[in-house]
Amino acid sequence: MINTLFLPELRDMIAAGQKEEMREFCAALHPVRTAEFMEGLTASESWQVLRSADREQQQEIFRHFDNDKQVAILELEDRQEVARLITRLAHDERVDLLGEIDEEIGAELLQLLPAEERRDILRLKAYPEETAGAVMTTDIAKLDESLTVDEALKELGRQAEDLETIYYLYVVDTTDHLRGVVSARQLVSAMVQPETTLGALMETDIIVADSMEDQESVAQTVARFDLLAIPVVDPERRLLGIITHDDVIDVMRDEATEDVQRIAAVNPLNESYLRMNLLRLSWKRGVWLTILFFAALLTAFALDGYQDVFAGAEATWLVLFIPLVISSGGNTGSQSSTLVISGLARNDISVTDWWQIFRRELAMGLMLGTLLGTFGFLCAAFPAPSLVDALVVPITLLLVIVCGTTCGSLLPLLFQRLGLDPAMMSNPFVAGIVDIFGIIIYMNVAIVLL
Amino acid sequence: MINTLFLPELRDMIAAGQKEEMREFCAALHPVRTAEFMEGLTASESWQVLRSADREQQQEIFRHFDNDKQVAILELEDRQEVARLITRLAHDERVDLLGEIDEEIGAELLQLLPAEERRDILRLKAYPEETAGAVMTTDIAKLDESLTVDEALKELGRQAEDLETIYYLYVVDTTDHLRGVVSARQLVSAMVQPETTLGALMETDIIVADSMEDQESVAQTVARFDLLAIPVVDPERRLLGIITHDDVIDVMRDEATEDVQRIAAVNPLNESYLRMNLLRLSWKRGVWLTILFFAALLTAFALDGYQDVFAGAEATWLVLFIPLVISSGGNTGSQSSTLVISGLARNDISVTDWWQIFRRELAMGLMLGTLLGTFGFLCAAFPAPSLVDALVVPITLLLVIVCGTTCGSLLPLLFQRLGLDPAMMSNPFVAGIVDIFGIIIYMNVAIVLL
Repeated sequence: MINTLFLPELRDMIAAGQKEEMREFCAALHPVRTAEFMEGLTASESWQVLRSADREQQQEIFRHFDNDKQVAILELEDRQEVARLITRLAHDERVDLLGEIDEEIGAELLQLLPAEERRDILRLKAYPEETAGAVMTTDIAKLDESLTVDEALKELGRQAEDLETIYYLYVVDTTDHLRGVVSARQLVSAMVQPETTLGALMETDIIVADSMEDQESVAQTVARFDLLAIPVVDPERRLLGIITHDDVIDVMRDEATEDVQRIAAVNPLNESYLRMNLLRLSWKRGVWLTILFFAALLTAFALDGYQDVFAGAEATWLVLFIPLVISSGGNTGSQSSTLVISGLARNDISVTDWWQIFRRELAMGLMLGTLLGTFGFLCAAFPAPSLVDALVVPITLLLVIVCGTTCGSLLPLLFQRLGLDPAMMSNPFVAGIVDIFGIIIYMNVAIVLL
Repeated sequence: MINTLFLPELRDMIAAGQKEEMREFCAALHPVRTAEFMEGLTASESWQVLRSADREQQQEIFRHFDNDKQVAILELEDRQEVARLITRLAHDERVDLLGEIDEEIGAELLQLLPAEERRDILRLKAYPEETAGAVMTTDIAKLDESLTVDEALKELGRQAEDLETIYYLYVVDTTDHLRGVVSARQLVSAMVQPETTLGALMETDIIVADSMEDQESVAQTVARFDLLAIPVVDPERRLLGIITHDDVIDVMRDEATEDVQRIAAVNPLNESYLRMNLLRLSWKRGVWLTILFFAALLTAFALDGYQDVFAGAEATWLVLFIPLVISSGGNTGSQSSTLVISGLARNDISVTDWWQIFRRELAMGLMLGTLLGTFGFLCAAFPAPSLVDALVVPITLLLVIVCGTTCGSLLPLLFQRLGLDPAMMSNPFVAGIVDIFGIIIYMNVAIVLL
């Protein structure tokens, strides 16, 4: 929903070239809101307004534009002005953005940047996607341990506007090796003794991330230690950059979405559903559907082997309950595997708890199976020729549901043990296994009882 | 996995009453790590060690103990000492904790607290679960706008140790109405002009949360505006407390887990899988399983109506493909509904996009249906009496899969429109609808073609 409240006014300002008014508009509200009010403007109109804004506001508003608008501005507007904007963007965000624009224009813009900024961009670009190095930003406060509290505060005051965070000061030696961390809180508390050095104040047991570490594991560390930012180091413990809390929130959101999509057997989209190319989307869905299709095809083979069981005139009523048996097993199985997957993701449970989990799920299967089996018996009593025949349905349901809870809980643990992603592999496999077992159990119970 | 590295040493220290050594142990590492090293100790042993720790470390380590240990310490250790610990805990965490211990002991402990702290706890306890008020903490820096930068820094230095965050200063009037916010970054940048007042520095377009707002919506606001903390206000805009970034990360995690569990048709557990009472767990699972069971039962009724279609000697092969048809429709449907649910959760799509989503899913269903239909035809060609007969399977698959993608995408949108939780309601409903349509389509295609 586009907010049109200020659009006419803004267009008037652009037409009349009222720079001062546009500057005031950009300064009046929170940058996120300002960006939202400009959603209805074209990229070029938005840039007209933004050019009049103060330095700091300009980049704050720009980073909250939607991606398409950012790309259009970088590609179409005056190269010199755009290059100046790029020098002011957060170091991690501008790398992502430059990766999305036309390559030639990107190369031209790179040439217009100061050498140091260019090097920084090229260095960050080299990290593989979804690693700590690819998410980190390099605009951090690195200080020497001999600095006093007073000097550090002054230094911070000078740099504050350009830093991504001022809430941790990183103490490094002359070759950038991380020695310690001082939080802004410690610094402020220590103001009463302004001559204390950072070396005396700093914590040396520092939680760090390796630059090649997976972003999800970094996010978990940040959450576990309640950090505002985590330093990223190379194997020699040289400070390369930091990952801040807002990036961690984004990572956690993306990973949660990926998990949900994997559980529903879709390869993670990694982009907006509505914008994604239909062929790419159908590929991401088709792969798993095909695998699941051939898993389900095994049920046809299984049923084929039992044709004489349900083809007899007395036993066609058995066919009525095939979907019910299969879906009850599948639903219970997907409950179990989802509970185990989300437990693993939250570190509530670990692979070593497997025996306890197995016993719980066995008990759960017996309880749920008895419940649904009772319903099943009442329903089967009508079409079945005799009450003894009708017993086929509840007995099958009980066994299938126990099979669902136990397979559903143990398979994700097995996948985790094997180093595979439990979210990716479990639900489809559980569904396939329970379907086939469901048919085999149903038919064999029928053979025994009828 | 319990880390046993320091256990013997710690036990020796406890036995010998070496207070100084225990104090040093508590100060040496990051509190999270210290708490982990103490995991193998009993609650009473842990408390022995913790009693020797410095004030600040004591509460930092305590808050990272697991829940059971915290409760045991509060319930069993010396009331006076425990009460002193409680006064130092974060205001939001101690309310949660007091809610979990024995009621009588809780009342006793409350009586031992200073009147102000007691009032604060009772006030926070009054907010309904999962609202902003229940998540917020009340230990914040409230300052007057006439304060200068210099005075504010000094005041902050005095309070820093007791505050949950020092990264935003909240400017209030004499009756606590929120007037503005100054970030620590602004304050530090303004140090060169120490006589500037907070009133001149503060931002007045403040993003706030209402105390009764749902925690999930608050978390989304914080993520959208990249905040470190959000102030919580009452309807008169009086400042009640703040919610900090680490609580937001926890909320986002909990909500993601809840969504995953709902999608798999489990009522959210809201507690650890392994600790949960089996009867409660079976209730949370059994409710939806029963609903899904009766939905699946409709397939039995549907099949009953078509007994003469598949009971004929020529057509029993149709039975073989019943599970395949149903599971293909179900899998496609759950893909579609999960994509729409996660798109809604991320604000990538909204209900007003329904027509675009419908067209996309229709196209997707035709593509995926053609793919799986082709496989299906190849498989049905063998058991079917003729190739024309075999066409029943691919045509059915195509129709069922289109039904799956369209129902799967539109139902969550419909539920959202009706104000229901799309994650809760959609997948079970989609599964039920697609199962029944699957049977009806299959049988009617068979009637037409055979």
